This record gives sequence, structure tokens and C-alpha cells, in this order.
Amino acid sequence: MNPTRVVAFGGGHGLSASLRALRHCVPGLDLDITAVVTVGDDGGSSGRLRAERGGLPPGDLRQALVALAGDHPATRRSAALFQHRFAAAGGGPDGADSLAGHAVGNLLLHGLTELLGDPVVALDHAGAMLGAVGRVLPMSRQPVGIEAQVRGADPDRPDEVRTVRGQHQVAVTAGTVESLRLTPAAPAACAEAVTAVRAADWLIFGPGSWYTSVLPHLLVPGLADAIVSSPARRLVTLNLVAEKETLGLSLPDHLDTLRRYLPELKVDMVLADSTAVGDPVAVERAAESLGARLVLAPVAVTDGTPRHDPAALGAALVPVLGADR
Amino acid sequence: MNPTRVVAFGGGHGLSASLRALRHCVPGLDLDITAVVTVGDDGGSSGRLRAERGGLPPGDLRQALVALAGDHPATRRSAALFQHRFAAAGGGPDGADSLAGHAVGNLLLHGLTELLGDPVVALDHAGAMLGAVGRVLPMSRQPVGIEAQVRGADPDRPDEVRTVRGQHQVAVTAGTVESLRLTPAAPAACAEAVTAVRAADWLIFGPGSWYTSVLPHLLVPGLADAIVSSPARRLVTLNLVAEKETLGLSLPDHLDTLRRYLPELKVDMVLADSTAVGDPVAVERAAESLGARLVLAPVAVTDGTPRHDPAALGAALVPVLGADR
Repeated sequence: MNPTRVVAFGGGHGLSASLRALRHCVPGLDLDITAVVTVGDDGGSSGRLRAERGGLPPGDLRQALVALAGDHPATRRSAALFQHRFAAAGGGPDGADSLAGHAVGNLLLHGLTELLGDPVVALDHAGAMLGAVGRVLPMSRQPVGIEAQVRGADPDRPDEVRTVRGQHQVAVTAGTVESLRLTPAAPAACAEAVTAVRAADWLIFGPGSWYTSVLPHLLVPGLADAIVSSPARRLVTLNLVAEKETLGLSLPDHLDTLRRYLPELKVDMVLADSTAVGDPVAVERAAESLGARLVLAPVAVTDGTPRHDPAALGAALVPVLGADR
Repeated sequence: MNPTRVVAFGGGHGLSASLRALRHCVPGLDLDITAVVTVGDDGGSSGRLRAERGGLPPGDLRQALVALAGDHPATRRSAALFQHRFAAAGGGPDGADSLAGHAVGNLLLHGLTELLGDPVVALDHAGAMLGAVGRVLPMSRQPVGIEAQVRGADPDRPDEVRTVRGQHQVAVTAGTVESLRLTPAAPAACAEAVTAVRAADWLIFGPGSWYTSVLPHLLVPGLADAIVSSPARRLVTLNLVAEKETLGLSLPDHLDTLRRYLPELKVDMVLADSTAVGDPVAVERAAESLGARLVLAPVAVTDGTPRHDPAALGAALVPVLGADR
């Protein structure tokens, strides 16, 4: 039997949780995993590389690769190397400490792309270096900017709407995001990602920072078209708690934003944590308006922090992904 | 039958040529290859890393790893990544271009050592990443300085002897090296290198920059002791042409310096290129004073540049290394 082809969308920690959960579904399920990753990061090591040298911000791509790295001790050690951040070292004669804070894997991905001339070829090779159990693709071969119209970004002027520019600023804004856009407004989709979406059995959105990691995919026209027209079933994994950028956004609101930015989107399943869901009736109604059934399961870690537990999330995904059409 | 254990000493291009030649001996010979590498580099990417962040200068270690990298297309691509130097990129907002000129493999080795806490563990992992067909060790876990007393370093004062400090400066000095020392004067030998030397069947010195890549090993007391007391046979591969640091040093002089810096050294074979050797009688006499037999073979590339051809050098090494004791 052919493996079940799963495409997971996101960026950063949420996507890592999703990918680690999918790994927990194997060997119970035979999965062919593809991660499609946002390319809007402009903070930290990725932001410095992007500003100084151009190319895709590598951090979220690196995180996805590491989440899929093989279990062999050697590939686990290589994954630790990818994640290692150069320590501060006091600086050279001119006080420069040019490497401090860079993740080794970010530099490696940047160098591979320079060497091989294409980020997808570079990611495939990095995946091979890590013995990755799936493929990592960018949503676009070009980096994008993320901008939001935010009401009350300045707490002293709660009714004023202003433009907040940059993924990092949007992610930490104090106000309410009223609308989101990419710059350029219609970036070209990564062709390999479009192909993976069209061939998929399941598309998985979330968890993750909603405005900066989940919704951007829906704003890439070629990817949005493929998502809508794919024969795949679609699953949304809801967050456990609002992040700063989504303070004031309820779980039903999260689902409503998907429809707002991609009105043709139909969803088959919405997965929420049994405890974090709060009022299940409101979430169920929002899910139904997307055409989806709500599935509740205990998917959070048990120490009370708002993080998905990969094993629990995987256990919840097995009956969903394993169900016959 | 046990493999023949070969330890090759050097640093930089000469050691790479030696290691590539040894690879050409396989599968005709079953070899267990260890490279022992100088750690005095203070130029280029290695020098910047060493000055700004400390630790061993990684460049010569990287070159040796790449020379031993596996033949699989994936490991060859990883080797190309290790060798890739970040392009200049115009600089960031402050004009900094902190990565330009660094070899990716240098940053990777530095990061691995930071992560794993030990350069030998880091080198073993990097070797695994490259599918290396042998082991690469530093001559010491501490970086060393190289200093020389040089006559005529200033061409206007041909008789003045002055101290030239730093491997790079010694390598390009215009004068005549009168003596060589390390700082610290007696660095601790890498224990794994000592073990490899004691267990070896063959020790191979050169080709390479004589003062900065070949002789430094003899100035590390623990390594020198192991070299002298090892039951291994010893081979010296002579250079094809004088480099800047050895202008005025004839091939017999090269052999004499070995005895000068390690008087107890006995050598079994001296290998020289049939054409480059010039007067074979003088070289033969110098070889005999070390206890060695001179072997002549065509080991240079055929385009006239003074480089060893790995296949030809390997072909010359097979009967030497394969000979019974």
C-alpha cells in the first residue's frame, strides 16, 4: 500500500510540534511527510543573515529539518550541531563577535544555498545530512515581508490603526491585528511545495503563531490555489493558548481567520485539546462553518505549560490520518 | 590480515596530497589511515576564528577531512560544503560582512568543538558526516604559535637575523630560516595521535611546507618521543619545488633539517620525484645519513606545475607500503 502523503504547514515551534507528532504516528502509519515553511522571519540569526547577505531566512527551515532528523546517534548529533548557537566570545581586536548567536545550521543552510545555487536542492542535501524522515520545503523561494494593520499597537492610542512591519514586530505587537499582507503581495509559490500539496492525502495547518506562521501560506496565491484544489483532506490543529499577536483572538476566531484569508478553504477536521478548548460548542460551530468536524483529545504536555506533547498529539492524529476516505 | 596502519603528518595542501595518494593505494592495500595535523595556522579564515574566538585553527584539519571524505555523491557534496567559502555580500547596515571568506567547514568544526567540548570528538563526528575513510587528529589540543629566526627577512639588511612570528609570516618570509620554535615551546601532544603513532606500521612525513607543516610535529615532545620509539617504518616524501619559506633549501637540506630538529629520527625510505630530484646522488647521500633508501618515481602532475599527482604518488606508495618487513 502506498504511504499516506501528509503536508504540514507552519513555521517555528508550532510546525516542529506538528512534525514531531507525525513522527510518533510512524510505524503505526506509513507516512510520507513534507513540511512547507514560512519565509518571513526577520529576527535573530535569520534576520541578520537575511539583512546582511540576502536569501531565505533559514531558522524556521532549520527547525523543521531538525524535527525530522533521524534517530541514529550520529544524525541526532548532527541535529544538535544544526541547533547549536555560537557562544559570545569577547570579540576580536576590533570588538567584533561576528558569529555569536548564529545557529550553526543557519550558516550551513546559507552556505549550502550559495554553493548549490538553489534553496530546495540545499534543503534536500541538509535533510540527507540529518537522515531526515521527510522533506522540508519553503513556501516560496523568495523571502517575504509580513505586514499587519494593527489597532492599538500604541497602548496610549487604543483606537489608532497603524501598519506594523516585519514578522518579528507583528508577532510581538500589543494591539489587535486587523489585517495581514505579504510583501511582495503575491510571491511565487515554491513549485515543489505546490506539487506536494496537489499529491497529498492530508494537509495539516497549525499549531503555531497564527498570523506569522499559519496564515502566510494562504496568502501565497499559487499555494492557496493548490490547497483549495487538492484532493487531500484538510486538518487544522488549534493552538493551546493565545500568543501575544493573537491576544483577544478566541479559538473560533482562529478558524474564522482561515476563511477570511482563503474563503474557498474547506476543512475536514479540527483538532483541539480537550482542556484548552474552553467552550466546545462555539469551536464546534466555527469548525462546522468550514465544513469540519471537531475532534477533542488531550494533546498538551501534562506539566501545565501550553505546549503540545508530540506523543499525545501523534496518538490523536493516528485515528484521523489512518481513517479511510 | 590486519590492515596496514599508516599515520601521515603534515598540514594544508601537502598533507591533502599525501592522504589522497593513500586513498589511491586502496583497494590494492588494506590501509587504516590517520592524519596528524599541525595547529599553528594564524592566517585567513582559521586565523580570524582563532584570534576572535580561540580554539584550534580549523583550516588544515578541514582540508585533511575533505581529502579523506567518502566517494558517495552525498558525502562528496558535504565535502564541497566544507570547502565552500562564504562570498562577499556587501555588508549589513553597519557595513559588516562577518561571514565573507570563512570556509563553511571551519565554522562547522568550531561549532562542533563548542558543542561537544573537545576537538577530537568534534573531528570524529565531522569525519562521520563526510564518510571519511580515515581519522583526522590535531598534533595538539592547544593551538600553537610558530616563530623563526630568519636571516635577511628584510631584503635591505641581508645579514640581520630577526624573529618572524606566526605561521603565515614564516611561510612567506623572504629570508633564510635559521631556526624554528613553537610557542609554547613544548605543547602537549594529542594523546590519540601518540597512540596512533605507537600502533602504526608506517609514519609518513611530507610533502608540505617544510617549516610550517612538516617540522612542527617534531617539536611537540610527546609526539617526537612516540615517533622515535614507534616500531613503525618511516617514509619521507620530498617536495617537488622549494616554497618561499624554503628558498635556498635543497632537497638534501630538507632531509638534514629533520635530523637537526629530531636527532634520534631514523628513516627507512625517502621518496622523491624522478625529475624534481635534480642530483640524485646528493639526495641519496642525505637519505642514507638518516638510514634511508632513496626511491625515485614520477609523482608530479604532468602539466608541469609542481604538484603531486595523487594517483601517481599512490602508485609509488603501493610497493613501499605493501613490502614485507
